[in-house]
Parts: sequence; structure tokens; C-alpha cells
Amino acid sequence: MRTGAWLIGARGSVAVTSMIGALAVRAGLTGPTGCVLESPALRDRVRPGIGDLVFGGHDVTSVPLEKKAAQLAEAGVVPAALARAVQGDLAVIERDLRPVPAAPTQAATAAAVAADLDRFRREHGLDRVVVVNVSSTEPVPPPHPAHATLTALRAALDGPGPVLPPSALTAFAAFESGCPYVDFTPSTGARLPALAELALQRGLPYAGNDGKTGETLVKSVLAPMFAQRNLRVRTWSGVNLLGGGDGANLAEPGANAAKAASKQRVLAETLGYAPQGDTRIDYLEDLGDFKTAWDLVTFEGFLGTAMRMEFTWHGCDSALAAPLILDLTRLTAAAARTGRSGPLTDLAFFFKDPLGETSHGLAEQWRALCDLIDTLAPQAEG
Amino acid sequence: MRTGAWLIGARGSVAVTSMIGALAVRAGLTGPTGCVLESPALRDRVRPGIGDLVFGGHDVTSVPLEKKAAQLAEAGVVPAALARAVQGDLAVIERDLRPVPAAPTQAATAAAVAADLDRFRREHGLDRVVVVNVSSTEPVPPPHPAHATLTALRAALDGPGPVLPPSALTAFAAFESGCPYVDFTPSTGARLPALAELALQRGLPYAGNDGKTGETLVKSVLAPMFAQRNLRVRTWSGVNLLGGGDGANLAEPGANAAKAASKQRVLAETLGYAPQGDTRIDYLEDLGDFKTAWDLVTFEGFLGTAMRMEFTWHGCDSALAAPLILDLTRLTAAAARTGRSGPLTDLAFFFKDPLGETSHGLAEQWRALCDLIDTLAPQAEG
Amino acid sequence: MRTGAWLIGARGSVAVTSMIGALAVRAGLTGPTGCVLESPALRDRVRPGIGDLVFGGHDVTSVPLEKKAAQLAEAGVVPAALARAVQGDLAVIERDLRPVPAAPTQAATAAAVAADLDRFRREHGLDRVVVVNVSSTEPVPPPHPAHATLTALRAALDGPGPVLPPSALTAFAAFESGCPYVDFTPSTGARLPALAELALQRGLPYAGNDGKTGETLVKSVLAPMFAQRNLRVRTWSGVNLLGGGDGANLAEPGANAAKAASKQRVLAETLGYAPQGDTRIDYLEDLGDFKTAWDLVTFEGFLGTAMRMEFTWHGCDSALAAPLILDLTRLTAAAARTGRSGPLTDLAFFFKDPLGETSHGLAEQWRALCDLIDTLAPQAEG
Amino acid sequence: MRTGAWLIGARGSVAVTSMIGALAVRAGLTGPTGCVLESPALRDRVRPGIGDLVFGGHDVTSVPLEKKAAQLAEAGVVPAALARAVQGDLAVIERDLRPVPAAPTQAATAAAVAADLDRFRREHGLDRVVVVNVSSTEPVPPPHPAHATLTALRAALDGPGPVLPPSALTAFAAFESGCPYVDFTPSTGARLPALAELALQRGLPYAGNDGKTGETLVKSVLAPMFAQRNLRVRTWSGVNLLGGGDGANLAEPGANAAKAASKQRVLAETLGYAPQGDTRIDYLEDLGDFKTAWDLVTFEGFLGTAMRMEFTWHGCDSALAAPLILDLTRLTAAAARTGRSGPLTDLAFFFKDPLGETSHGLAEQWRALCDLIDTLAPQAEG
Ligand SMILES: NC(=O)c1ccc[n+]([C@@H]2O[C@H](COP(=O)([O-])OP(=O)(O)OC[C@H]3O[C@@H](n4cnc5c(N)ncnc54)[C@H](O)[C@@H]3O)[C@@H](O)[C@H]2O)c1
Ligand SMILES: NC(=O)c1ccc[n+]([C@@H]2O[C@H](COP(=O)([O-])OP(=O)(O)OC[C@H]3O[C@@H](n4cnc5c(N)ncnc54)[C@H](O)[C@@H]3O)[C@@H](O)[C@H]2O)c1
Ligand SMILES: NC(=O)c1ccc[n+]([C@@H]2O[C@H](COP(=O)([O-])OP(=O)(O)OC[C@H]3O[C@@H](n4cnc5c(N)ncnc54)[C@H](O)[C@@H]3O)[C@@H](O)[C@H]2O)c1
Ligand SMILES: NC(=O)c1ccc[n+]([C@@H]2O[C@H](COP(=O)([O-])OP(=O)(O)OC[C@H]3O[C@@H](n4cnc5c(N)ncnc54)[C@H](O)[C@@H]3O)[C@@H](O)[C@H]2O)c1
Ligand code: NA
Ligand code: NA
Repeated sequence: MRTGAWLIGARGSVAVTSMIGALAVRAGLTGPTGCVLESPALRDRVRPGIGDLVFGGHDVTSVPLEKKAAQLAEAGVVPAALARAVQGDLAVIERDLRPVPAAPTQAATAAAVAADLDRFRREHGLDRVVVVNVSSTEPVPPPHPAHATLTALRAALDGPGPVLPPSALTAFAAFESGCPYVDFTPSTGARLPALAELALQRGLPYAGNDGKTGETLVKSVLAPMFAQRNLRVRTWSGVNLLGGGDGANLAEPGANAAKAASKQRVLAETLGYAPQGDTRIDYLEDLGDFKTAWDLVTFEGFLGTAMRMEFTWHGCDSALAAPLILDLTRLTAAAARTGRSGPLTDLAFFFKDPLGETSHGLAEQWRALCDLIDTLAPQAEG
Repeated sequence: MRTGAWLIGARGSVAVTSMIGALAVRAGLTGPTGCVLESPALRDRVRPGIGDLVFGGHDVTSVPLEKKAAQLAEAGVVPAALARAVQGDLAVIERDLRPVPAAPTQAATAAAVAADLDRFRREHGLDRVVVVNVSSTEPVPPPHPAHATLTALRAALDGPGPVLPPSALTAFAAFESGCPYVDFTPSTGARLPALAELALQRGLPYAGNDGKTGETLVKSVLAPMFAQRNLRVRTWSGVNLLGGGDGANLAEPGANAAKAASKQRVLAETLGYAPQGDTRIDYLEDLGDFKTAWDLVTFEGFLGTAMRMEFTWHGCDSALAAPLILDLTRLTAAAARTGRSGPLTDLAFFFKDPLGETSHGLAEQWRALCDLIDTLAPQAEG
Repeated sequence: MRTGAWLIGARGSVAVTSMIGALAVRAGLTGPTGCVLESPALRDRVRPGIGDLVFGGHDVTSVPLEKKAAQLAEAGVVPAALARAVQGDLAVIERDLRPVPAAPTQAATAAAVAADLDRFRREHGLDRVVVVNVSSTEPVPPPHPAHATLTALRAALDGPGPVLPPSALTAFAAFESGCPYVDFTPSTGARLPALAELALQRGLPYAGNDGKTGETLVKSVLAPMFAQRNLRVRTWSGVNLLGGGDGANLAEPGANAAKAASKQRVLAETLGYAPQGDTRIDYLEDLGDFKTAWDLVTFEGFLGTAMRMEFTWHGCDSALAAPLILDLTRLTAAAARTGRSGPLTDLAFFFKDPLGETSHGLAEQWRALCDLIDTLAPQAEG
Repeated sequence: MRTGAWLIGARGSVAVTSMIGALAVRAGLTGPTGCVLESPALRDRVRPGIGDLVFGGHDVTSVPLEKKAAQLAEAGVVPAALARAVQGDLAVIERDLRPVPAAPTQAATAAAVAADLDRFRREHGLDRVVVVNVSSTEPVPPPHPAHATLTALRAALDGPGPVLPPSALTAFAAFESGCPYVDFTPSTGARLPALAELALQRGLPYAGNDGKTGETLVKSVLAPMFAQRNLRVRTWSGVNLLGGGDGANLAEPGANAAKAASKQRVLAETLGYAPQGDTRIDYLEDLGDFKTAWDLVTFEGFLGTAMRMEFTWHGCDSALAAPLILDLTRLTAAAARTGRSGPLTDLAFFFKDPLGETSHGLAEQWRALCDLIDTLAPQAEG
């Protein structure tokens, strides 16, 4: 049941925190706090386990894992002692990290990506490789007619110009290579008709988009509370102050807009109407990997009485995201094993902008997850 | 389907806000914001409707409803225009408010209470009367051997000394008179073996305890979120600053302790362990009917990373509680009509300290409520 | 000692709240809370008193004062009873409100403004008229060579095109008419070399800019605290959520930028360096005249320890601004009486963006104010 | 100009953080952030400098400094690298730490304390030794007639029973030994008529009480802001959640009451009236050396408009206190050198419960400090 976790953006904060964590949990140096599949309610239900994961991946940078680990320790994301303890194991993973292939046509690039995946699977004797996108958020790409059908897409990829943004090209390569695909970012990923067609053709599942780790997570439980109590939310405004590599990237207006929109969606979907207010994302280099979000909710109760709630969330984004990467890799691998294909809408629990027409309320997403796990559980395989 | 709502503490803030609201909604002067049974998901499912409710009740004070209504308007709990508009209807209700009976023995007092209930039912030709306790929170009463069985209780009530605290004596009288009973306060109410026996004997349902309207409501969605994400909550501390009649009463150490304990229970039950920290209640006369609660949650994520969340809730307690009084009266009446008896554990959604062994997570409580409503819905009567 | 308060934007929230307040205080219906000159430390030191003020003004809208007063009452800015009680007096003021003059050249417009001021002074037998700008914030105007000298300005004003933004043209007219000028907005007002020249020539004082009523007020005491304790502020980020007419106007990017810049200035000036972070202003219609500001400050202590502070300010802007309008009118009139001319830098206490090279720390501004008052006090005239 | 800093509670968090910091600053390993005397405005004005301080002290525990330093590093109070770098220097200080003397009578105990001070001064050839109390807060001691005069006190100390609480006995011994005394705690310290008499007799200055490092510091700038703006503070409530050794101690009701009272005093003194509300202190072991305080202020503006402000302060108490210990030692030594004796009321800037009838507003305290420094500055010595 050895399973590959091929991370796009493998030298980034989320990726490296995932690796350090998996190695440390495996070595018994720390517990699996934050791993949903290791909570008392779900423990031992899903295989592969954390210990079955083998890491590899692509990145555009070549900063050594060891150096990144030291930075994460310095920044307080991982304990320095843990980072040191897994140094040797990180060096082993280092050998399976590759630069992002670049070829004259996107078809050729995809083929090179697929070749990297195949070699990784073969060399480690893996049952399956899950491709997980944890690279920098892309700007929203321009529409392209070839996105509509697989035939059109294949034809266009052979041409000279770029047809797919990197995240979608990776999804294409993953599917071609027989790998399920998870997109933890708000980028396009597998969300194009042509790619849905390909996944179905190959019988492969995919999951996404945009990991839900902070303010939106809180919204996904508070908004249903207001709805169930029939309290009228009048305004909901938020500000996210964040540093880190992701923060720097999101300071770009394009990426920022993509993210901010996906953060406010939960409200309209859960409440049934869109309250006034926006979510803002501001980059503050000095905050490092930590993020502070503040939200103000004004609402109206019986007879119009005006009331309000505010919350501040101060979280370490990579520490919140990394255990979910382990969960998602395991769940997607298990789903593939049981023959699931197409969008894994039952993984909405993990995402800000979940695939399919699913509830944005965390409680219903949790139930969908538990139901999915019932179908994945080892005994269910018999 | 005319249904009596007999309020204990009928001249208090919650009671009078409920009356004003029901009258105003009925007159089409305002919408039913805050009434759970009027939310889009549940509208028109449960009868009696708000318009079917007829109000009466007991109180130890004799402040006229009109004066209390003016105070509530002054305090910003109800709009002054609404309070004026329903003045005439309040005067009608005034005629059905009675002083709390007091007789030489508690048995005789209970008989006098029951007589008031009977007369109310008769005079208004009501299908059913629901007794709802919204009077001041009592101190925790001393244990008494006669609480254990109905036989012992009946015998003891004939004696001279007090056996039951007022809330429990009222529940006793309600059951004797064939009325379901709802306790919106943390007082004892129906929660004694002898009273459970009586309710079962008479085939009557009851609900409680302690309406969930603010900080605990928020806890009941946030705590499951931390649990489902397998994040370890290390400390959870809260402070509640409140004024109003209820606040003054809670400033008494006895009542305060009862309330604070029921506020922290949700954590241990939902998380599976008790984090460090307490909930404090402080009386600040100047805050009037408004309450500000602040909670700090510190939690631990992957690899032990320390994170934190804080929230401030600024609510008008009476405006939050009043619509629930309408909901609870309707639901309890409908449950009685369908033959339910004993504790209505499926109403946990409304309570801080719900009856029975039920989940403290709001989402599961919501599902239980929806399931209950399915059995109560008019069509289900056939 | 009857003194005119000629308000530009006389039908706006700040202006009308000032009028209602002055009338109510004069009639003994309410106390002077929020009036700095009525605090125990300064009471009875400065004449004219509140009762000596006579109101008039310009506005581009013609919404009757009575209607605006009703709106302010509805919005919770002024008590409804007070608004009703001063209705008659407001009707009297109504007669002294004029539409903003418009003539073929700005010189002619200024002459028309001056004529309105003269008539007002004459008709009411006023000792002095202070012109106070409380109209909507203007966008930052383009530079113009005629701003540099009075001679150039006079010449240009006779030409066809606009040379001065409205606030500056009003300041020009005020000075021409012998009136001191106060700018409570971030608009240009008297801040042009040509106007400074004119004020000096006429021996008139002026004050400004941009009333300090909320977040910046708090900053002006917190920033010195960090500086005095030699704690290093690393980031200071704020968000201002506001509704009201001013909010709608500030939602315009031009006005917004002007305001946001003046809000962050206090930090660099007080700390001696500019921490990372911005102040954002967001318009939320639903908040009405109330504003909620949230600020996060991260700072570094001994040995680099990371610490943080956050605050939420929930204020009613008009209620905070209006008493300062009374203070500023009185102080500026008194200063004019004692012969002060040029920028009243000793009024920095009242402004976000004070004139001159003065401290941005509130404590030093307070001392400057007290020192000024010592020179204005009635006994000082003898 | 070598000056002794003899710390009572020398193995506690504040003491050891002070030592590590002084050593690290001296070694050029870190800057003096948080040291008031090293702020740009005051740098190089007061001698002794940080580098002139020699540490010694008493403690009831014998936990080695090195172990305590490791704990502080583990807790995030001091950087681990700094703690390691000064290890050798700490070992040198270790030799000058003594157990708290205990003798049959308090007179004999005081003599033993004085002997320790003398030996320390002699062995290191110090110009002067300042005794600084940073030991655990004592419960409020019972009154004793011998506190009233020095003669009565000397007589009583020779008797068998305890007359003075430890902090006051230490102050007595310090004065007897010719040492100025600083009390950073809310304990009694030098605040007894008999001790004031002794200090005057010996011509020695003393300072205190209770270092102002968090919530009270913020109050001391916000309360004057409300007062100067003539805004009426209606309620001011706070909660302090803290861990650490000090927190555990303050969980004792006696110590807690002493501290909470001194925290609320600033309000009445600055505002001129006491708003409703209390400050609570709760111990949460899990918070370690960090403290989170939350305050809610409700206030009234013009025409009675209700407004509110809240703030959260998240500080590391030891990191805030330690640099002030260095400042206070230096200032008190310099004051002694210039012949000051009696209470140093001009050091109110540093204390929650300052000696003498001084302002509780930080700005005025800052001015008093600057004035004091003018008299202490090296050039002022001639
Ligand atoms: N951390 C969270 O809580 C969270 C939540 C939701 C989504 N995300 C998303 O996860 C992603 C990773 O976040 P992070 O904090 O690790 O960011 P990061 O900046 O630390 O890492 C991103 C990595 O991607 C690499 N990269 C950039 N472009 C690439 C490409 N075309 N191909 C391969 N690698 C590429 C970068 O070199 C970098 O190493 C971001 O898109 C972020 O928006 C994170
Ligand atoms: N408002 C909320 O959000 C909320 C939430 C949970 C529970 N509660 C509970 O609801 C109750 C009512 O709250 P409130 O704000 O209306 O309080 P209130 O003080 O305004 O009203 C209580 C009323 O009960 C009356 N009363 C006291 N003792 C009585 C007795 N023995 N018999 C009959 N009447 C008696 C009082 O005279 C008063 O009129 C309180 O116990 C409170 O703890 C309220
Ligand atoms: N309220 C505060 O706390 C505060 C603080 C600082 C500055 N200010 C400034 O005070 C001003 C007034 O605020 P407000 O809340 O009363 O706004 P408002 O929108 O309620 O009132 C502005 C008034 O100015 C009028 N007006 C617009 N252009 C005009 C012109 N050219 N000549 C004459 N009148 C004109 C409008 O018709 C309106 O009646 C704004 O510029 C605001 O930025 C307010
Ligand atoms: N840290 C702050 O911001 C701050 C602010 C104001 C006041 N204070 C006060 O400073 C003091 C020290 O705080 P801390 O955090 O270092 O506490 P701590 O518990 O870490 O240290 C106190 C030390 O005093 C020792 N001690 C106890 N009784 C003693 C005695 N009789 N003689 C000598 N030593 C004794 C203890 O063994 C311990 O080592 C406390 O009284 C605290 O209230 C601290
Ligand atoms: Na807050
Ligand atoms: Na907060």
C-alpha cells in the first residue's frame, strides 16, 4: 500500500511542513495533531496510513529542503529539534525532487511531467501516486476555446502557444500518467471541461480547490449558525493580514482577487443571500508564516435589534495546511483504489471552493466525509 | 389549534419581548427574524403558528406590561413604535397575568397554580396550555429525599416545609394540570426523578434547560470545528458582561455558579476532554439588556504549533431569547399533540444544558430538530 | 460676544448634530459630554460659550434640517426626544442656510459667499463669524501655479476655469470677508501659500485639518506609549468600516487615499519610523453613522520577543465630531479676538493632520491646547 | 560607577530575563529594545549604564540559573541562542546568589540580609548596591502597631513573632545596609511609616510599586484620552489570563485582590470618577510566561450616544518587565548618587501603584521622568 505523494511546489512551506510532519509522526517524535484522519473518530479507518506515504515533487526553485526546513524552524512553524531530527530523511526525499520540466510545446512538457511521475512510481515500487498542487497561486488565466473538449485540448497542446496554466497542465499530465490529482490552491487545476473528460476516461478521481485553513473555516461554522437561528446577517467584513511566500504572492492583485472571492462565497451559499462586506487580504512581510484574520459580523435579531460579533484568528497557515495534505493524499489514494473517478465532491470539508454543488456548511461537509470514509474503510474492501 | 403560552416570570424581559414580538408579527408589523420555525427551511411546518398563541402567566412582581414594554423600548430591546402599536393587545394579556399563588403547603400552592392554568385554558377555549419558565434563575436547591419518587414527593408536599424550589413546584403543577412544561432557565424545573415519573404517568412532554442564546451558541459550533479538524484546544476562557434583571440575579454567587458550569459543559462533551479555563459572568448594570462576551481559545496544531482565536459577541439577550420562546411553545405543543411524553431531548438545539444524553454540537442538534419536525408536521398527523 | 458658526455642509450629519446639540445644551436638555471646553479642567475658560453661538451655513443639498434631524434620530445618532424638542429652533436656523453660490468666475463665486457671510453677521449683530468646513471630503485637487502667491491667485480667480477646489475657495471668501476659517475635513481648505498670505494680510487665524475622532485618536496615545517604552512597533494595520454620507463619499478612491494617508502619518511622526501596514477604509452602507475600526499592532520587546495588541473602536462619528465643532468655533473665535493670525498649530489636539510642525502625540497636543487656553481665558483679556 | 543589582527573587522569570538581557546587550548580541533609558530620547543620559551593573540576589528556591534560562528559552521568553551564549556569565552570577537568610528573630534575619549585601558590595568593589524586589507577590499582611514608627519597629523586630512581611523586612535590611530599594511587586515593600522614617534617616531613596507592563500601561494612556475628550466612561472591565510562576501565585485570592485593586486605581484617578467594572486575573497554566488581557470600555458621547472600545493585549510579561528592572536600578542608583532620599515619586512612569500623590496618566509621568533625568544626567553632576 505504499503510496506516492508528488507535490507541485515541493520546496514551499506547506509541502516541506507536510514532509517534516509525516517523517516525525512516522518516527514517533510527535503526534498527528491536525490530521483529520487521525482524530479519535476516524483513526485507523483509511489506508494508506501516514507511514505509507513516499514524497517527491516538482518545484521551480532549487532551495534545498534542509535549508527550507531550517527557515521553517526559525519562523516557528516547526520545532527546531524536529527539523534537525528528520534531516537525514529529508535528504532522501531531496533525491526525488525535480525541476519543473519545460519543453517547446505544452504537450511535450506534459509528457516530461508524466515521465517524472512514472519513474517515481517505478523506482519506489508504489501502488499509486497522487499529485498534489501546493505551488504558488496563479493569476486567473484567460479563457481558451480548447478548454472545452479533450479533443480540442490535445490538438491545441501540440501548438506553440500556452493553452493551459501550469496547474491545469499538471493535472493533464497527472491524468495521462494514471495519477489522481488534488488541488490545494485556488488555481485552475482540474477545473476545465476537457480535464473532467480526461479524468473520467481514465477512471481517475480528483479533489479541490483551495485548502480551507483559517477564516473561511470559521465562517463555515458560524454562517450556518446564523442561518439555523434565522438571524439576519447584515454585514460580514474581514481582513486577512499575512506574510510568508504565499502572502507575497497574494499581494499580486490577480491572485488576491481569486482568493478573496472564494473566501466570501461560503456566506451567500450558506445564508441564502449575500450580506454587505468584503474580505481583504493584505501582505505584511513581518508576520512571517503566521496570519491574523479579523472578521466583523453585524446581524439583526427579533424585531430588528442590531447585534454584532467579531473574531480574530491567529494561525500558522503551513501548520494548518500540512496535515490536510497528508489527509487528502490518503483519501484520494483510497478513493482511487475503490474505483472512484471524477470530482470528489465529498471532500468539500477540506476546501474553500469545493468542487460540485455541495453544502458550504462544515457540519454537512463533515458528514459527507464520514460517509465517504465508510466506503473507503479497509473492511469495506473485503 | 389555539394554544396557551403560560409564562412563569411573565413580566420579565424575555417574556414581555416574546409577547410584543408575537403580537407585532401577528399584526404584520414586523417579520419573524430569530424565530427558528420561521426560517426558510422550516416555515409552515409546525402548528400552532405564532398567531395561534394566547399569552398568560405568573409573576411575583406587578409592574404593568405596558410599563415594562416602555422600559424595553427605552433600553433599545424593542422599537418604541412597535411597543406603542401593540399597547392595546398587551392590555388584553394583562388580564391573564396572575400573582404567584402562595398557600400554607406546597401541595396547596401547586393546586392553586393548577387552578390558574385550568381557568386560563377554559376561559380562552384553548386546545392546550404550555407552561414556560422564564423567571429569574434560582440558586441550586439542597437535595431532598422526596425528590426521588412521586409517592415520596406527594407525601412531602403536604408537609409544612418547602420540598421543591419554585421552578420544580411549577413543573409539578403543570403536569398535574395536564400541561407540557418548558424550562428556559438553568433552574431545576422538571429535572427530578419524581417529576419525570409524573410526566410519564400523565403522558406529557417537557423540555429544557437554559436557553442557548450567546456565547454558548458560538461554542457549540466552534468546538466541533476544532474537534473535526483534530486541533487540540489547550485553553478556553470566557467572560460574560451583562446587565439587566437577569444579570443582577446572576451576580448572586449561587445562580452564577449554576450558569457558569452549564456554559463550560459543551466543551468537554464536544471535544472529548476539558481544556483549561473558565467562563466568568460579571454584572454591569450599565450594559442594560445587552451582553458582551469575550472568549479566548488557544489551540495547538500540527507539530505543536501554538495558535489562538478570540471572539466578541455583543447581543441583546432578550431579543435572542424571545423568538425561541415562541418556537419552544409551538414545538412542545405540537409534540404533546402527537403523543410525545417525557424529556424532549430532540430540542437540545435550543438549550445550553439539554435534557438527556445528546450531542452538544449545534449541527447534530439541528438535525435532531429537523427530524423531530418531520414527525410533527401537520401532514404527518393524517 | 454673539458669534456666528457658518457651516459649509450645513445640512450634513456633523453639522446638524452640532446644531441639535448646541440647542439642547443651551435649553438645559442635556449635558455637554464630548465638548472638550466643558470638561472639568477647562470649563468656563473660553468665551464665546456654547450659548453664544448662532448657526448658519451653505450646503449643496436642500434637505430640510428637520428631516435630517429625524434621520439622525432614526439612526440612533441623537435621541428622538431631543430632536423633537429643538425642532422649533432648527426651523429658525433653517432661515440662515443658503445654497452654495455659483457664479461665472471663481472670483465672483467667492464674492457671493462673502456677501452671504456679511449679511449673516449683520442680520444677527454678530461680533464675529467663524467659517467651518464640514462638507464632503474632496478628491485631492491638481496643483495649479496660482496657488503659490496671492497676486497670482487673485488674477487667476478672475479667469474662467476653476483654480481652487471648493474648500479653498471658501477659505478665500472667508478671509476676504474677515472671517477665521476651520477645516474639519481632509480637503485642501486654507492649506495653500496664497491663502496663508491672505490670512496673514487680514490678520485672521485658521485651523485644521481633518477632525480626529476615532482610530487616529487612539493611535495618538498608543504610539507615544510604545515609543516611550522603547518597544519596537513592527506592523500596524487597520481597517475602518463605516457607513453614512461620509462613508459613501470616502468609498471614492480619491477621497479614500487622502484620508488613509492622513491616518497613518501619526505613526511615523510619533515613533520616528514607519512600521509596516496600512489603514483601509471600507464603506458598508448598513453601518449607518456608526464606524467600527480594528487595528492590529505587532511589536517587539526585550531580546526580540514578539508581542501584539489589537483594538476595536465602535463609535458614532457624528456624535464624536459635533462637540468638537462647537469647541473649534469657540476657540478660533477667541483666538481671533486676541489677535492671533495664521495657522493655529496649537489646535493639533483636534486634528488628524494638524497644521504646522507639531507633535502628533495627544498628550503634548493637550498641553499645547491648555497653554493656548491660558492666553484666551477671559481674565487674560482684561 | 560599578553598581550592584541585588535581586530578591533572583531565580525568578523577571530576574533571570534581566540578567540574560543585560549580559547579551553588554556582549553586543542584541539591542536594548524595551529599555526606556536606551530610547533615542534618553540614550546616554543616565549612568550607571547597563554594562556597569553587577548582579546578585536572594531566592528561596535553588533552581540553577542555567536551568531557569533553559526554561525561559523553551517558553519563548528569550531566544535559545542568547541563553546559550551567556551561559558562562550566568554561572559567574550564580556565585553571588544566596538563599534567603532565616534567623530566630526578624532583627537577626535583617542583619543576615544586610551582611549579604555588604559582602556583595565589598567583594565586587561596588559604588552602590540597589536592592530590587522581584519575588513572588505576598498576600496583604495584617496591620501591626509597630509599623507606625521606627522606634516601635526596632523594638518589635527583636521579639519572636513576625512583624514585617518579607518584602518590608528586606527593605528594612536594605536601608540599614545603606542600599536604595525598588519594589517591582505589589507587596508592602518600603510602604510603611517606620520604613519611610528609616529611609529618610539614612538619606536613601526608594521606588515602587508594582511594575506597569501590560493592561495598566494601556489604561494609563487611554483613560486620559477619554478624560481630555470629555467622553464619559460608563464601564471598564478587564480580564487578565496569565500563566507562569507569577500567575500561579496570583491565583491565590489574597495576592489576586492586591493586584486587581492596583490595576483599577488608574481609572478613578485619571477620570475623576470610578466607572463600573472590575479587572479579573485568571491563572491558565498553559499560557506560560505570556499573558492575554482583554478590556471592554463603554462610553458615552455627545447627547448620550453609546459607544465602545475593546482591546486585547498579548504580551510576554517577563520580556516587558526585565528591561524596566535595568532602568529602575540605574535610575535609583543615579538618584542616590545625587543625594535624593525618600520616595522617588518621579518614577511613577514605571509603576501601577506609584508612590506619592502623582498623576496616573502616562504622559505626565513621562514628563516627570524626563525632568528627573535632567537632574541625574552626568553633566548635571559637574
Ligand atoms: N497554507 C495554507 O493555509 C493554504 C491554504 C489554502 C491554499 N494554500 C495554497 O497553497 C499554496 C502553497 O502555499 P505555501 O504557503 O506553501 O506557499 P510557498 O510560497 O511557500 O510555496 C509555493 C512553492 O511553489 C513553488 N512554485 C511556484 N510556481 C511553481 C510552478 N509553476 N511549479 C512548481 N512549483 C512552483 C514555489 O517555488 C514555492 O516553493 C499556495 O497556492 C497557497 O495559496 C495554502
Ligand atoms: N435572555 C436570555 O438570553 C436567556 C438565556 C438563557 C436563560 N435565560 C433565563 O431566562 C430567565 C428570564 O430572563 P430575563 O432576562 O427575562 O429576566 P428578568 O429578570 O427580566 O425576568 C424575570 C422575571 O421573573 C420574575 N420572577 C422572579 N421569581 C419568580 C417566581 N418565583 N415566580 C414567578 N416569577 C418570578 C421576576 O419578577 C421577573 O419579572 C432567567 O432565568 C434567565 O437566566 C435567559
Ligand atoms: N464625523 C467625523 O468623525 C469626521 C471626522 C473627520 C472629518 N470628518 C469630515 O467631516 C465632513 C462631514 O462629515 P459628515 O459625516 O457630516 O458628512 P455628510 O455627508 O453627512 O455631510 C456632508 C455635507 O456636505 C454637503 N456638501 C457636499 N459638497 C458640498 C459643497 N461643495 N459645499 C457645501 N456643502 C457640500 C453635502 O450635501 C452634505 O450635506 C466630511 O468631509 C468628513 O470626512 C468627519
Ligand atoms: N512580569 C511582569 O510584567 C510583572 C509586572 C509587575 C509586577 N511583577 C511582579 O514581579 C514579581 C516577579 O515575577 P516573576 O514573573 O519573575 O515571578 P516568578 O514566580 O517567576 O519569580 C519569583 C521568584 O521569587 C522567589 N521568591 C518567592 N518568595 C521569595 C522570598 N520570600 N524571598 C526571595 N525570593 C522569593 C521565587 O522562588 C521565584 O524564583 C512578582 O511579584 C510579580 O507580581 C511582574
Ligand atoms: Na475584539
Ligand atoms: Na479582539
